[in-house]
Amino acid sequence: MSRIAITMGDPAGIGPEIIARAFAEHPDAMRNCFVVGDVGCMRRANAFVCATVPGLVLPVAAWDAPALPQNVPPGTMAVVQVGAALPPIAMGQVSASAGAMAGHSVLCATAMALEGKVDAVVTAPLHKEALHAAGAPFDAFPGHTEMLQDAAARHLNAPVPVRMMLANNELRTVLVSIHVSLRQAIEAVQPDNVLQTIQITHTALSRLLGRRPRIAVAGLNPHAGEGGLFGSEEQTIITPAMERARALGCDVHGPFPPDTIFMRARKPAEGASEFDVVVAMYHDQGLIPVKYLGVEQGVNVTLGLPFVRTSPDHGTAFDIAGTGRASAASLLAAVQMARALLTS
Amino acid sequence: MSRIAITMGDPAGIGPEIIARAFAEHPDAMRNCFVVGDVGCMRRANAFVCATVPGLVLPVAAWDAPALPQNVPPGTMAVVQVGAALPPIAMGQVSASAGAMAGHSVLCATAMALEGKVDAVVTAPLHKEALHAAGAPFDAFPGHTEMLQDAAARHLNAPVPVRMMLANNELRTVLVSIHVSLRQAIEAVQPDNVLQTIQITHTALSRLLGRRPRIAVAGLNPHAGEGGLFGSEEQTIITPAMERARALGCDVHGPFPPDTIFMRARKPAEGASEFDVVVAMYHDQGLIPVKYLGVEQGVNVTLGLPFVRTSPDHGTAFDIAGTGRASAASLLAAVQMARALLTS
Repeated sequence: MSRIAITMGDPAGIGPEIIARAFAEHPDAMRNCFVVGDVGCMRRANAFVCATVPGLVLPVAAWDAPALPQNVPPGTMAVVQVGAALPPIAMGQVSASAGAMAGHSVLCATAMALEGKVDAVVTAPLHKEALHAAGAPFDAFPGHTEMLQDAAARHLNAPVPVRMMLANNELRTVLVSIHVSLRQAIEAVQPDNVLQTIQITHTALSRLLGRRPRIAVAGLNPHAGEGGLFGSEEQTIITPAMERARALGCDVHGPFPPDTIFMRARKPAEGASEFDVVVAMYHDQGLIPVKYLGVEQGVNVTLGLPFVRTSPDHGTAFDIAGTGRASAASLLAAVQMARALLTS
Repeated sequence: MSRIAITMGDPAGIGPEIIARAFAEHPDAMRNCFVVGDVGCMRRANAFVCATVPGLVLPVAAWDAPALPQNVPPGTMAVVQVGAALPPIAMGQVSASAGAMAGHSVLCATAMALEGKVDAVVTAPLHKEALHAAGAPFDAFPGHTEMLQDAAARHLNAPVPVRMMLANNELRTVLVSIHVSLRQAIEAVQPDNVLQTIQITHTALSRLLGRRPRIAVAGLNPHAGEGGLFGSEEQTIITPAMERARALGCDVHGPFPPDTIFMRARKPAEGASEFDVVVAMYHDQGLIPVKYLGVEQGVNVTLGLPFVRTSPDHGTAFDIAGTGRASAASLLAAVQMARALLTS
């Protein structure tokens, strides 16, 4: 069975407790997973969670990095300690020490994946301000995706083009660009970039589905430009990129009016959807529909890395951190997605 | 009871038959409504619809414009003939004559509203290519909204700032700009334009709800600019406009990250939503979420006109026109919304 490293996330947020809840309540779903972070934080999160359910007990087994957990019995949460034990931190508050521990946990798990010691990394949420407060090297990254991309590129000594995919039970979308202004996002709609997004999507979804995925491509402009009346990127950039992708064997359709393609690609409760995935031209075009029905089931997948990486599609939720109330649903969905990407 | 004119829409599309279906199956909902268009087309649409339901009969009463229907018994569809009777047209096909009849029907109903002869106009869908084929003056307008705005401005001899609102059972959104490229939409995010959108929204929703509406304002950039990291329009344009709106008595909140504000403003099946409406910075930002769950219940409202105007949130559906299968749900929702805006 594949081995999956789960990074703890910011220890002042809900990351540690959703991990502990997943291990405590869904031991089968978490088989061969282990945590990368701080043992003390995970023990405390375990106490938060077990206090909410009478009789719930989750043994914790500790290792020191770079050692990997061995022979961990089912129903036990193995934790690999990253660096020195973290002094107690306040829940729900930004701190440099919490941000640094979260960042180092990601780097440690990424190194394990790049060295082939684990097959997938599932990341619990970071807090951007804490990461920024932690200083170099973490303050250079707007989020996980860029940090993982950078680590992979350093390891391989080559550029690693990646794309973010967001998926829930009814919709998948892959983004041409992510953490840039809308003005810059328009500039990023270039033939090579659109083509690369389609190719990365085709490769990843082919693996996930075991067949050629039906890819819908959204336009950039309202009504996909209305034949050039409201913008010409569909004609000059997107359609030519799609033709190149088609020549390379991708099953691409569009470009479609953005306001209805997500509705069309949405999987109905019964039956099949018209497309398997939508390539979105910018961050909010894809994320508004995928988040619209709620984020509990959403999974973020980084496509293009030399290993599988998924994460829950929510943040650190500082407002409820430490209460043991946070749902583990999105984390469990992220683990399930990682297994699907590994075994297919 | 308020009098509502319903424009026929493109006669080659589903407009006539969804109107006939609404009159035939929901006579109470259609009280004091009448059709503006072509009597022959409406009789034919009536036949399409009645053929689908055994025993369904809908009498048609005809008037010639500018006469208005008088003493129409409930359960009868009154139709005002615009210009000369239209020669038979092919269903599901673009034609200049169909586009011209659709365009003249809108102008005729708009004139009735501007002269105070009707209280509201509900418009069935136009086909842009047919409208374009009809030539001047119709080919100058990307859609209803711009045509109505132009007619009102000519009548009042003054600029008429309007905004499009899209609403369904769970979400309302008002757009800063509509039928322009995404590049131009970014340029349209200017302080006066954002302020005017908020004010128009405040005025219309105050009337609809009978209280001060809670207005959420979406950012332009991912994460609402992440404190300036991914764009500065939130800081330099949107927030100052919101402060001016607040000083004028509007209850505005934000600017919020676009990818989650629509989820937050969405009315749950039970209980209340966090906001009454979202001001969206561009067409697809607002229309993707409002259309995501399907367009059958969606209503398009033009805010800012000197009369009430609503329409169903779907197109001419040439592929099923003439089959009598099209749903009247969105048209009925548009009539209901018009009444709510009139009576509140």
